[in-house]
Amino acid sequence: MTNVSIIGLGQTDVREHWDTSIRHLAWYAIEAAMDDAHHHEIDAIYVGNMLAGQLSNQNHLGALVADFAGLRGSEALTVEAADASGGAALRQAVLAVQSGLVETALVVGVEKVTDESGAVIPAALATALDADYEAIHGQTLSGAAALLMRRYMHEYGLELADFAGFSVNAHANGAANPRAMYRNKLRPESFISATMTAAPVSLFDEAPTGDGAAAVIVTASERAADMVARPVRIVASALTTDALALHDRRDTLWLAAAETSARRAYEQAGLTPADIDVAELHDSFTILAALSLEACGFAARGRGWELARDGSIGRGGRVPISTFGGLKARGNPVGATGLYQIVEVAQQVRGTAGDCQVVGARVGLAQNLGGMGATAVTHILTCEE
Amino acid sequence: MTNVSIIGLGQTDVREHWDTSIRHLAWYAIEAAMDDAHHHEIDAIYVGNMLAGQLSNQNHLGALVADFAGLRGSEALTVEAADASGGAALRQAVLAVQSGLVETALVVGVEKVTDESGAVIPAALATALDADYEAIHGQTLSGAAALLMRRYMHEYGLELADFAGFSVNAHANGAANPRAMYRNKLRPESFISATMTAAPVSLFDEAPTGDGAAAVIVTASERAADMVARPVRIVASALTTDALALHDRRDTLWLAAAETSARRAYEQAGLTPADIDVAELHDSFTILAALSLEACGFAARGRGWELARDGSIGRGGRVPISTFGGLKARGNPVGATGLYQIVEVAQQVRGTAGDCQVVGARVGLAQNLGGMGATAVTHILTCEE
Repeated sequence: MTNVSIIGLGQTDVREHWDTSIRHLAWYAIEAAMDDAHHHEIDAIYVGNMLAGQLSNQNHLGALVADFAGLRGSEALTVEAADASGGAALRQAVLAVQSGLVETALVVGVEKVTDESGAVIPAALATALDADYEAIHGQTLSGAAALLMRRYMHEYGLELADFAGFSVNAHANGAANPRAMYRNKLRPESFISATMTAAPVSLFDEAPTGDGAAAVIVTASERAADMVARPVRIVASALTTDALALHDRRDTLWLAAAETSARRAYEQAGLTPADIDVAELHDSFTILAALSLEACGFAARGRGWELARDGSIGRGGRVPISTFGGLKARGNPVGATGLYQIVEVAQQVRGTAGDCQVVGARVGLAQNLGGMGATAVTHILTCEE
Repeated sequence: MTNVSIIGLGQTDVREHWDTSIRHLAWYAIEAAMDDAHHHEIDAIYVGNMLAGQLSNQNHLGALVADFAGLRGSEALTVEAADASGGAALRQAVLAVQSGLVETALVVGVEKVTDESGAVIPAALATALDADYEAIHGQTLSGAAALLMRRYMHEYGLELADFAGFSVNAHANGAANPRAMYRNKLRPESFISATMTAAPVSLFDEAPTGDGAAAVIVTASERAADMVARPVRIVASALTTDALALHDRRDTLWLAAAETSARRAYEQAGLTPADIDVAELHDSFTILAALSLEACGFAARGRGWELARDGSIGRGGRVPISTFGGLKARGNPVGATGLYQIVEVAQQVRGTAGDCQVVGARVGLAQNLGGMGATAVTHILTCEE
């Protein structure tokens, strides 16, 4: 268990923010988090971002965001771990506060993909893969997910319809989230007839990239209790890695980093998968949702898909996932996604999730993946009464 | 004072490594650091890098470098703060070890610029500036340095020759460093007649970008003493920021972030500028060397240039800088530069700096800047007997 708690949450809508620059997106989330915490004094800022250098010609976001947020001079830097950048940035804040050298830290994940368009975006996203052995041959994230999914279907004798439940659940929940990129409900028939991007991965299987920012403010737990009514305790924080390239992994159909980081998180918190009331997993593709359920101990190997068929992942089910729409319907603002997950899980355990609330949620898990799971960051949150 | 010490150092040559990939560069430095420490067990890896996404189509270096170094599964991520990425990565390792949650951390700075050529490189470097208010108008790092330098010359009534001493000193020291990119000596006459890149900044004024990697291994000081004969204690670690754009700063000719981070470092260490035996400053341009000397308290405002004229910055002078050639002659492998500075200062205080040794050096300072000083990271190192 760490000695670190969340005292403020903020987020923007996830959508195509054509008229909003990356610094503005970051600021809107930061302002909301500061207002939520009733606290504006920040010692260090950790920015989670993957693509600003490539898509917005802007590196050096730490100093830029600090300045634009009225925090010129603060300690500030960018953390990058592909689409796990947001979770990795929170991990740095946890270490910083735990060290005693930083009192209050702000973590903001931000991504602005609409500064570019067309094939530039999938090419930029493919930098999460192995450049020399995957991307150079034309591999994309969708293509890599397709390889994983096809192998999974072959190994366990599944068909496309067996994955529909993931997207259907995500859209059903996203419809209740005013921040979500897509609020339309999805029918299983639409899922199986959707346009393929890299068969069997379709437009309704993969998460859409979007612009957005999400932020949290963290401080030492003993201070947090005096600052806000319901601080959210970070009872576990673990980051682990695996090979970037699928062909380098010892076991293609097992997300080793996701499993190790979840196991370490459970150990830190003194909890088991059965104790988790709500889980935000990295459903950038339905196959990653299925494999994440297995890696986190919610389903046996090869059985993750069943939870999408039998309703277990629904809001009233055994393992509610994608409760605000997940990456699929809330949208995937890449380097910000891990912070959206944290904001959502924190709202769930605080009991302020509105129409997305999982009744009685007290312990929540957020797991943020980079690429095809080469980075995995797991946090477990609970709300102190 | 932190409770963190360096137990191993590694670096590659800085040069154009046409035939070496970014993962190989990182590995060569890591292997050297592991050999130096006689220690291969690593809990967390912090990669300092600025440009791999743009120049090598490779983000997600944390997991990639961990895997390639035989450390698959380790906690690993990338830290970016423009050309201060290396120093910022070390700062994360200091916080991690200080937190008690990470026992031994590896910090590696790596940059590979020769995957691209021509105008792509200065454009990529310009992402350290404000994209919306500087770079979009064609501003480059050289151009921004030229503005600073011209103003400084105007304000203090200086001419080009007054800056020659910085480059002459850097090249004189670089000639003794087998790792340096340029080992030729430089005459003052050559400095003032050099080809201008953005007048008054010339080819012999600005540091050349190069490929390279440097690494250190850090652990808790009480463990370090049992592991190696001469651990190097990190007695201060401070990172601060300023506005990216020159026109946004309250005082153009004062590096506010460099001053604040140096002051905090002195406070942590209980030292004053007079206690520093050797200083590696961020001499990517001679004007930054002059302003850094002032910001760090080695010279009064407007007098930094004098230390290059009167020999104070030489190896036997009052404030030896660029003792292995500095960014100017050792070369500037951007995101790795901050770690080169740390490796060099550690060698100085350990007394293993070879032909570059400052006699009797016991306390050393390294200051790594991002862009035109919008990020500043200062570390102070001493050697335990």
